[in-house]
Amino acid sequence: MGKNNDCNHDISKAECQQSLNAMKDALYVIGGKWKLPILISLRGGHRRFGELQRSVEGIAAKVLSNELKDMELNGFVKRTVYDTTPVTVEYEATPYSETLHDVIKTLAEWGAMHQKKIRGRLKERKIN
Amino acid sequence: MGKNNDCNHDISKAECQQSLNAMKDALYVIGGKWKLPILISLRGGHRRFGELQRSVEGIAAKVLSNELKDMELNGFVKRTVYDTTPVTVEYEATPYSETLHDVIKTLAEWGAMHQKKIRGRLKERKIN
Repeated sequence: MGKNNDCNHDISKAECQQSLNAMKDALYVIGGKWKLPILISLRGGHRRFGELQRSVEGIAAKVLSNELKDMELNGFVKRTVYDTTPVTVEYEATPYSETLHDVIKTLAEWGAMHQKKIRGRLKERKIN
Repeated sequence: MGKNNDCNHDISKAECQQSLNAMKDALYVIGGKWKLPILISLRGGHRRFGELQRSVEGIAAKVLSNELKDMELNGFVKRTVYDTTPVTVEYEATPYSETLHDVIKTLAEWGAMHQKKIRGRLKERKIN
């Protein structure tokens, strides 16, 4: 208990606060329902807006458009306009977005473990 | 390009879809601005509602209350009511919440790296 025990005991309070802020920043930048699924969909290569919308199940055009702008600002997505008639716009994942590999992997592993736990609980309820 | 390349090439499409769903579930359960910061604050031990609100900077009481209910349902938080006058309510992190250790660590590491990158970019702009 007490204010000084918020963090692990083997690191200083300043370090802990830094680490908390870093995590908050990470959640701010990649959090929400869509950014990581969009990124995973872009991993296969360039995509046009419509293709991307179809591949990310359930996303509204307006939301996808905003998310892509955000992700471009944060350096995860590159947008290229081709001078065709009509104009073609393609999106691709940047090399920088590869730095998220471990984050995506850890989240997917934890999610799979959590799904199993929840399913186990539901089964127990049916039996009892 | 194309629909079959959404995932890495070394795993099947079914496995990829599973992994995407697992990640989405993880984001659904722990995503948002507050859940992980609340959990980190609870790591130090039991906490009353007011203490918790003060320790998680910037959170509104209504939001904290909803997040705690959600986290209780998902097995991350245990709520105990003590029969004192007035009644005392305390929250604590469950052993299950420890499974999030790697997720929190990976997010904090990535966040720290991203902060450095953004700061580097801002410096460059000031110099030019």
